[in-house]
Amino acid sequence: MPGGGARVVDAVPDDALVVFTPSGRRGRFATGTTLLDAARSLGVDIDSVCGGRALCGRCQVEPAVGEFAKHGVSSRAENLTPLSETERRYADQNGIAPGRRLSCSTRILGDLVIDVPAESQVHRQVVRKRAEVHEIELDPAVRVYYVEVQEPDMHDPASDLRRLKEALEFEWRLERLGCDLEVLHGLQAALREGDWKVTVAVYEDRDIIAVWPGFHSRAFGLAVDVGSTTIAAHLCDLSSGEVVASAGVMNPQIRFGEDLMSRVSYIMMHEGGEVELTAAVREALQRLATEVAAGAGIAVESILDVCIVGNPVMHHLLLGVNPIELGGAPFALATDEATRLRARDIGLALHPAARVYVLPCIAGHVGADAAGVILSEAPYLREEMNLVVDVGTNAEIVLGNRQRMLACSSPTGPAFEGAQISCGQRAAPGAVERVRIDPKSLEPRFKIIGCDLWSDDAGFAEATAATGITGVCGSGIIEALAEMFLAGIIDSDGKFDGALAERSSRVVADGRTFSYVLHDGEVALRITQNDVRAVQLAKAALYAGVRLLMDRMRVDEVDRVRLAGAFGSHIDVKYAMVLGMVPDCTLEHVTSAGNAAGTGARITLLDRKARDEIEEVVRRIEKVETAVEPRFQEHFVEAMAIPHKSAEFPNLSRAVDLPARKSSGDAIETGARGRRRRRQSR
Amino acid sequence: MPGGGARVVDAVPDDALVVFTPSGRRGRFATGTTLLDAARSLGVDIDSVCGGRALCGRCQVEPAVGEFAKHGVSSRAENLTPLSETERRYADQNGIAPGRRLSCSTRILGDLVIDVPAESQVHRQVVRKRAEVHEIELDPAVRVYYVEVQEPDMHDPASDLRRLKEALEFEWRLERLGCDLEVLHGLQAALREGDWKVTVAVYEDRDIIAVWPGFHSRAFGLAVDVGSTTIAAHLCDLSSGEVVASAGVMNPQIRFGEDLMSRVSYIMMHEGGEVELTAAVREALQRLATEVAAGAGIAVESILDVCIVGNPVMHHLLLGVNPIELGGAPFALATDEATRLRARDIGLALHPAARVYVLPCIAGHVGADAAGVILSEAPYLREEMNLVVDVGTNAEIVLGNRQRMLACSSPTGPAFEGAQISCGQRAAPGAVERVRIDPKSLEPRFKIIGCDLWSDDAGFAEATAATGITGVCGSGIIEALAEMFLAGIIDSDGKFDGALAERSSRVVADGRTFSYVLHDGEVALRITQNDVRAVQLAKAALYAGVRLLMDRMRVDEVDRVRLAGAFGSHIDVKYAMVLGMVPDCTLEHVTSAGNAAGTGARITLLDRKARDEIEEVVRRIEKVETAVEPRFQEHFVEAMAIPHKSAEFPNLSRAVDLPARKSSGDAIETGARGRRRRRQSR
Repeated sequence: MPGGGARVVDAVPDDALVVFTPSGRRGRFATGTTLLDAARSLGVDIDSVCGGRALCGRCQVEPAVGEFAKHGVSSRAENLTPLSETERRYADQNGIAPGRRLSCSTRILGDLVIDVPAESQVHRQVVRKRAEVHEIELDPAVRVYYVEVQEPDMHDPASDLRRLKEALEFEWRLERLGCDLEVLHGLQAALREGDWKVTVAVYEDRDIIAVWPGFHSRAFGLAVDVGSTTIAAHLCDLSSGEVVASAGVMNPQIRFGEDLMSRVSYIMMHEGGEVELTAAVREALQRLATEVAAGAGIAVESILDVCIVGNPVMHHLLLGVNPIELGGAPFALATDEATRLRARDIGLALHPAARVYVLPCIAGHVGADAAGVILSEAPYLREEMNLVVDVGTNAEIVLGNRQRMLACSSPTGPAFEGAQISCGQRAAPGAVERVRIDPKSLEPRFKIIGCDLWSDDAGFAEATAATGITGVCGSGIIEALAEMFLAGIIDSDGKFDGALAERSSRVVADGRTFSYVLHDGEVALRITQNDVRAVQLAKAALYAGVRLLMDRMRVDEVDRVRLAGAFGSHIDVKYAMVLGMVPDCTLEHVTSAGNAAGTGARITLLDRKARDEIEEVVRRIEKVETAVEPRFQEHFVEAMAIPHKSAEFPNLSRAVDLPARKSSGDAIETGARGRRRRRQSR
Repeated sequence: MPGGGARVVDAVPDDALVVFTPSGRRGRFATGTTLLDAARSLGVDIDSVCGGRALCGRCQVEPAVGEFAKHGVSSRAENLTPLSETERRYADQNGIAPGRRLSCSTRILGDLVIDVPAESQVHRQVVRKRAEVHEIELDPAVRVYYVEVQEPDMHDPASDLRRLKEALEFEWRLERLGCDLEVLHGLQAALREGDWKVTVAVYEDRDIIAVWPGFHSRAFGLAVDVGSTTIAAHLCDLSSGEVVASAGVMNPQIRFGEDLMSRVSYIMMHEGGEVELTAAVREALQRLATEVAAGAGIAVESILDVCIVGNPVMHHLLLGVNPIELGGAPFALATDEATRLRARDIGLALHPAARVYVLPCIAGHVGADAAGVILSEAPYLREEMNLVVDVGTNAEIVLGNRQRMLACSSPTGPAFEGAQISCGQRAAPGAVERVRIDPKSLEPRFKIIGCDLWSDDAGFAEATAATGITGVCGSGIIEALAEMFLAGIIDSDGKFDGALAERSSRVVADGRTFSYVLHDGEVALRITQNDVRAVQLAKAALYAGVRLLMDRMRVDEVDRVRLAGAFGSHIDVKYAMVLGMVPDCTLEHVTSAGNAAGTGARITLLDRKARDEIEEVVRRIEKVETAVEPRFQEHFVEAMAIPHKSAEFPNLSRAVDLPARKSSGDAIETGARGRRRRRQSR
């Protein structure tokens, strides 16, 4: 530029001053300039799929009318061109809110203040339910672009693909694009059917993965959490970030074994078993995709991108990798990197060129589900010390903050899921989920899943007649034990106070020990000494894992505790702390993270930058293997007591009246032996 | 480095001077250094797959013994360590030539001159049959690497893939590798079976595509020419560049139509016809791959890379793209870029992660086969003006040199392949391929395919009894017409001299015109006036296309003419020039290029840089569409005469006694009409 340096814009009579809010960017423009062009020249973030053809409606703005002293602008209605024919056509077909205009079809005639609503921004944020967690920026890996392509000409033998790429480069600055074979298959027909106007889906600004004739604004993606028990999926509109349908199915692998290790055993015992298990989970995923697509009223072929989390065994099986190495030491993962695939590579029939992104596993027992939790909870972005626990057959434990991140898994066993408990069951209608015990009468009251009444409320029997009272689920077990402890039925070693049998019929002799009768209906629900021991083993393993990470981090307390997963959503944190599952913490800072793993999958689906982010975080997480840490055993033994042999719980004590401490070597020995047994059988 | 700049190597007593030939690179090394390490530190090109473990034998060198005044070195046998145990084991198992040593296992004890034989170089050249064509440098897209991988460890939960990548980075400097899902499937088993020693195949230094337990030195690739009639494949050892097996099969699409346009018509008339044709060609390719693999005694799963050429219709059908757009103006290609695929994407069951590279098409009638020819002939590397012609149903014509490249196709029709000729047939045993006519007696003599005798040699009848004399193939037609012209049986307009019927029984009346009786056996072989016209139309189209490019290039003569394809291999260039198929040129500079298209495929298979090279060349080739060039028609009309209405043939005249010229408007009119008809039916 002559003179170089600063750029001088002369204010000629035809120029108008336009201020865009909320960014505050401003500039002078020749009258006749469209608002979209003006905004873009200033770097104002306005979306557009159709490239300014009044087809997509993404570029809506809200012109403000009035005197804006702050901006020095008198913004008047007549400073804009009136509704154009194309704009009117869009409004007739799609509707447009009062006061809104399509910025691509509206031209500047004088000074203006123009508001760009959040939903018109390319990098708008997707609203998440809990405000405390960092927002999702909408920047999906798959984006759609509308283009008009030069017709072929005998004088210029450029191929259809070349001319399509030229149009994408010219209109959207997309350069050096690759192109999927599937796109080539339908390209020529789509161009001709659309009369040389097509919509193109581009993956990661790099590969053309779909072409539709004419204008086609919507692309969909699927976020999937492949759990051992349940596979859950959310179908998202990639242009709005909205979840348009959700569904879950039981993991059909359950027929090969309830928990992960029994499925791995099945594979070890059955030639080709891994092929069966892989087929089962892939088929379930396909059914789920079909179901959510139907729920949203779209074709399953409209799904262009899939993001998946799952524990290491599910992760490997879904990818078709035999998980037997995860069944024994040293628990070597096949890969701890994120995996980028075509959907058809794992047998999914979605859009023929649909892509799949599988989050990275962290270690042999810390899976891509944990990576999803970490991404969703983002402890790595915080200053405070965060503890995130995802409780399943193995607890996945993450501790850290902006400076440093640690992770381990701890072999809690399935007690928290209701297994190994005499009256335990999965969380399902009919299962006891809340328990209160009167410390004087020792009489219980409880609630079951599927009914809002307490067992001592009027009408409870009628309300629960349909489901019956079938067992106690994980959260019910936690509450029952904690209340038993608070009522003095069991002591801090977990031993029954047999003397109570004399004053309450709820405490009954049971061989050489005692049981607590929670309910005595069609199914008798009794909490036995063995049940208490099973929960003690599980919670001691969990606490020991947490403690190990705290040692490594050289901290004695944590600032926040987040409980992820279905179990974490149903548990009452107070009771979890009474049992000493987690270290002491201000109670209001111990909260459920919901299905954080699934949320993590959804974040990577909606924001491609999150993929690099979680990969980078996973690489720098320090992985701790509890099995080779000598102090794990020590912590485990100490954690057998309720809530703990030595750790202080000052925050808990302020909220709950804890019974006095007492010690018994016997109980501890039992626990340590039990734990060793379980580790060896992994 | 302290002092910076020049590096000073102090000659301490323990140092030895080593000179590597033929490179002449030299350096001083501490005694005990291996020859391989010494060579590498000097940048001397020595191959190694096993990373210096005396397994692969690729790093062989030849120590020279004697006084080398030129190098100032006294190279003595005792200046090397004696045969080591590992070296002896290699020699016992694999053999090693006298005087050769494994450089990885031989250590320097004193001054040496070491010769590195050509076959031990990484970037060695593959010997091609014809010296005039540029050599192929061996640099395949797929390379194998032997590595030892760290065992997994509870204290370091890095996955098997991560440790494999670390080994590849440490030993081979391969960084940021991707990994195919198929590799993940077998990775853990391979590592354990190979006791943490594996061989890895890496594609384009970028993706791990195969892992084998232990040492596995050989990887194979397939170069394929998918022709309308024949599909030919060469199986190559990617580590030596050698062709280890070749085979050809008929293109099974022939059942849908002999020539390309009839196959395109089949698709236009039959719903889903393109699917049938695609399946047919892919199945044939699979059969061919299986056949060559069996021929070489390897599993078809050992094929890791495939390079393919073919005309545009074959190219599209193989990729599963409907070729109907190539059946009518403006003849738009779906893509004119090179296509990189997985073999399974086009239904090939080779190695599960095998890659496919399909050369780019140039224009609607100038295919990837032409790209292969261009790569093989490399006119773009030469100073002289090269004409390269690939004759088929459409002739693909390339003209150019280092400065500029032009290409077009010309609708010659199938006459050169024996079709549209009354006694014509494909080149097969029994077909007449050589013809001589005595200018005085007008008596012919001929040879047929499958017999070395001329028809007037003793024993000819017996020798040909098995095949019979069944028809005249393309090259036979060319020679028959050229000899008829030289003998005066037809004039330069292609008209029969009816007066000759009086003096020879070979020239017979045939309605209002005449025929020449070439043979009168079980099958009567007569060359009719219509046959002559058909060849005139074909050769005029070919010549007109060539001439158009010469006009565009502003040249009046060419320095070299190369005739590619099966037809080009069998034709006698003198007769082609007598008929005026190609412009005048020094006869010895008109030669056959053999199956240059297939050679082009082989070059891209053996030298990955050739892929970028041909893509770059194809982009800059100027594509000329004969159908829209007004001068094509004019050139065509002029080229109907034999050899041509006006063009001079001074070089040809020196070799052959050409009859005097004569003109007839009538013949030319016929030709022009015929040509228009054919163009319209494309």
